[in-house]
Amino acid sequence: MTSIDLNADLGEGFGRWRLTDDEQLLSVVTSANVACGFHAGDAVTMRRVCELAAERDVRIGAQVSYRDLAGFGRRAMDVPPAELAAEVAYQIGALEVFARAAGARVAYVKPHGALYNRVVHDEEQAAAVVDGVLLADAALPVLGLPGSRLLELAGKAGLAVVTEAFADRAYTDVGTLVPRTLEGAVVTDPDAVVERSVGLARSGEVVSHTGTRVEVRAQSLCLHGDTPGAVDLARRVRERLAACGVRVEAFA
Amino acid sequence: MTSIDLNADLGEGFGRWRLTDDEQLLSVVTSANVACGFHAGDAVTMRRVCELAAERDVRIGAQVSYRDLAGFGRRAMDVPPAELAAEVAYQIGALEVFARAAGARVAYVKPHGALYNRVVHDEEQAAAVVDGVLLADAALPVLGLPGSRLLELAGKAGLAVVTEAFADRAYTDVGTLVPRTLEGAVVTDPDAVVERSVGLARSGEVVSHTGTRVEVRAQSLCLHGDTPGAVDLARRVRERLAACGVRVEAFA
Amino acid sequence: MTSIDLNADLGEGFGRWRLTDDEQLLSVVTSANVACGFHAGDAVTMRRVCELAAERDVRIGAQVSYRDLAGFGRRAMDVPPAELAAEVAYQIGALEVFARAAGARVAYVKPHGALYNRVVHDEEQAAAVVDGVLLADAALPVLGLPGSRLLELAGKAGLAVVTEAFADRAYTDVGTLVPRTLEGAVVTDPDAVVERSVGLARSGEVVSHTGTRVEVRAQSLCLHGDTPGAVDLARRVRERLAACGVRVEAFA
Amino acid sequence: MTSIDLNADLGEGFGRWRLTDDEQLLSVVTSANVACGFHAGDAVTMRRVCELAAERDVRIGAQVSYRDLAGFGRRAMDVPPAELAAEVAYQIGALEVFARAAGARVAYVKPHGALYNRVVHDEEQAAAVVDGVLLADAALPVLGLPGSRLLELAGKAGLAVVTEAFADRAYTDVGTLVPRTLEGAVVTDPDAVVERSVGLARSGEVVSHTGTRVEVRAQSLCLHGDTPGAVDLARRVRERLAACGVRVEAFA
Repeated sequence: MTSIDLNADLGEGFGRWRLTDDEQLLSVVTSANVACGFHAGDAVTMRRVCELAAERDVRIGAQVSYRDLAGFGRRAMDVPPAELAAEVAYQIGALEVFARAAGARVAYVKPHGALYNRVVHDEEQAAAVVDGVLLADAALPVLGLPGSRLLELAGKAGLAVVTEAFADRAYTDVGTLVPRTLEGAVVTDPDAVVERSVGLARSGEVVSHTGTRVEVRAQSLCLHGDTPGAVDLARRVRERLAACGVRVEAFA
Repeated sequence: MTSIDLNADLGEGFGRWRLTDDEQLLSVVTSANVACGFHAGDAVTMRRVCELAAERDVRIGAQVSYRDLAGFGRRAMDVPPAELAAEVAYQIGALEVFARAAGARVAYVKPHGALYNRVVHDEEQAAAVVDGVLLADAALPVLGLPGSRLLELAGKAGLAVVTEAFADRAYTDVGTLVPRTLEGAVVTDPDAVVERSVGLARSGEVVSHTGTRVEVRAQSLCLHGDTPGAVDLARRVRERLAACGVRVEAFA
Repeated sequence: MTSIDLNADLGEGFGRWRLTDDEQLLSVVTSANVACGFHAGDAVTMRRVCELAAERDVRIGAQVSYRDLAGFGRRAMDVPPAELAAEVAYQIGALEVFARAAGARVAYVKPHGALYNRVVHDEEQAAAVVDGVLLADAALPVLGLPGSRLLELAGKAGLAVVTEAFADRAYTDVGTLVPRTLEGAVVTDPDAVVERSVGLARSGEVVSHTGTRVEVRAQSLCLHGDTPGAVDLARRVRERLAACGVRVEAFA
Repeated sequence: MTSIDLNADLGEGFGRWRLTDDEQLLSVVTSANVACGFHAGDAVTMRRVCELAAERDVRIGAQVSYRDLAGFGRRAMDVPPAELAAEVAYQIGALEVFARAAGARVAYVKPHGALYNRVVHDEEQAAAVVDGVLLADAALPVLGLPGSRLLELAGKAGLAVVTEAFADRAYTDVGTLVPRTLEGAVVTDPDAVVERSVGLARSGEVVSHTGTRVEVRAQSLCLHGDTPGAVDLARRVRERLAACGVRVEAFA
């Protein structure tokens, strides 16, 4: 039987501000990318998300980011590798406290926003993220884009790697994401998102922006949680996957 | 043979800014209170201080603080207990990553600045700090002022407590610190500081600001590292203690 | 004809996070307390709120705060007076740029959150806020609580003062606010809030929490904008005031 | 008679941390680039530097930066133009308060660190900085590198531009700076720096890194203030310029 992991970003508020509906999303996803305080996330929220995730057996991941609250980690930064590595480790360590206190452990690492995009191609920063993970815990898998420098270097360094796909993003004919700057980069029709999820999970295929079937093999699907209707859509995806015989469970 | 621990604040720079001469202080102290990023301390510095401390067998402590870089943690803040507890745990967790990476562990917790002063009397915040330590690791001792609410509540909660004294601060006749707002609160004569260190370590006594001998029993002496001449003075204290037959070593 | 000013806090998001419905509130209030970046508010939001306010002839006020994004300025802080004064001036200056660019000017200053509460009684911090306003522009009125140290010291220093009342807060028999820690401190029934607004504006009176009529003279009513239904309630208040023959306009 | 402006970065501490010897530098330079809180600089320091500068008739400039205290503004950031423009204006406005309070005005704008380097070539960010200056005050000159996109776009937008040169940096044969990543990029010999200052000021020429005389016309020389010996060197430069008949005065 085919299985797939569902991951989403959680705990992305800060102090007085809320963004993600953590409680609802934790009833849908199998892996929670928890913000660690650098682009979003405060200690109280991190603690609470870890407790809720542990209760529901949702896997806890460290969603590491550039230090950029004002930009929500969405602005690429030329952070020197030694700083980036140490900052990645710092964030993992901070989250680990709350994961342990909840009876769980940080189970993987996923870069956020501009850092996520940058380590697709940037050798130096990808290596720095890998160094940061190794510094924190060499047993932690890294979640990222198939074909990214990050996963390549993580693999070479002996880290486990987990690939993810996006049911709401358009893919090119070679299986890479259509850049957000281009029209049609985001799939906004909920029905289409649901069906693409099933295709990605069952056959590892998706229809590209030119209409061709293209292979996109991934162990996890990333669901977005910060838009109106996000939770409902996530729930529909999960239900449809189950109805199609796909087991929704955390990656191996 | 009598023994005493020497502790000092380290890693209190931030990014481009430096404050403490970490390398030199680590050749003198037996316990390093490492800033964890809330009042000072960045990830690169935390990593480096942990590596140096581990090499020299200096004990690593989490110097936890209010979140206040602009005020260096020296401004009392009415942080709600749940936030304070979570922030204390966050800081301990972040430091633990670097301690472990260096082959060591975080070995104790010491509040910094305004938080240190506040938990001498403030029941709510003292309890919150204890909660934060328990959240992170119930095996961690708490370093603080004898007679403080913090140590009292830490003890009640089953945490180990370590008391400290200040050779460069004036004491009252009942063994409490003369407030910094009063004249003569700080002992500035280096020779006096050295001799008071020996008295505190050997007999658990110090001459009060009225000239009376007063008992101040402490397992650790706090040395200041952020003033000109601080390192030299710290070194003199250590040498004089050794010459007087006091073994300088980390607290049990 | 009686007139009253309506003020509300605006621009209280930060980066990715939104809190207040600025556009809607600006169609209701006559004075906008714009967050200046210390407890909330980023430069883009400040600019946009100033533009919208200027278009609608809404008065722009600097909502100055402690430097505390993580706590939304709601945690009292022992900021030394010289720092507090300079930080108040800094915030006013930053906002003034956007007010001027929009063809307007910063027209008053109102402290936010914990600072607002503290300067009701704290002489030192109240004086520091006054110093900060004087540093920035001695022609700026200060908006605050009648009877507060802030308004008293502002008046003594030659600053204009503007008093405000809260239609959704319970008052004691001597016309002070019932502390938020007590039950019944906040009036949650929208109809009651509307009627209390009319009473405050027309007769300068409100029914206290014991049922007595008590005098509360104020030139401005503070409306809250950060709760669900806030905009609708604000609109109802404004409409009802107009229907009762109260002219809603910025304070003189 | 030839004249030259001397500028240096000032007020680059933050809270507890100090970097530049502001008092000493203000006795040497004619233009002070004051940090505005984004890469360094707190409100108290900004106020004090403005007061000292005004007393000594030193021109006050806004040293605007990316929002990056942790990286001291030295890490290039992909800040969207609307954000960057608003943040530049915010910083200018904040500084203007202290300049005015000291009886002076902000007299020019100079980008700092990674922003300075980026706007040499980056059209989008250069335009955003120009927009920020226009937003704040269209009468403010922009200080920067000759040939930079920033000065080009500032000029096109009708802003006055002021060029600067570096006596302690190596120049190529076409009059551009040798990148810091290359060996010999920084001239460390104090005597050489002094002589190059005279050459730049008197003849608008400097010897390139290949030994050729190359024209580098600039209205201001940038002196560095954050290294040991910086103040002494700055003083020597000023004295030697005077001895060589160059009038040291703020740019026209």
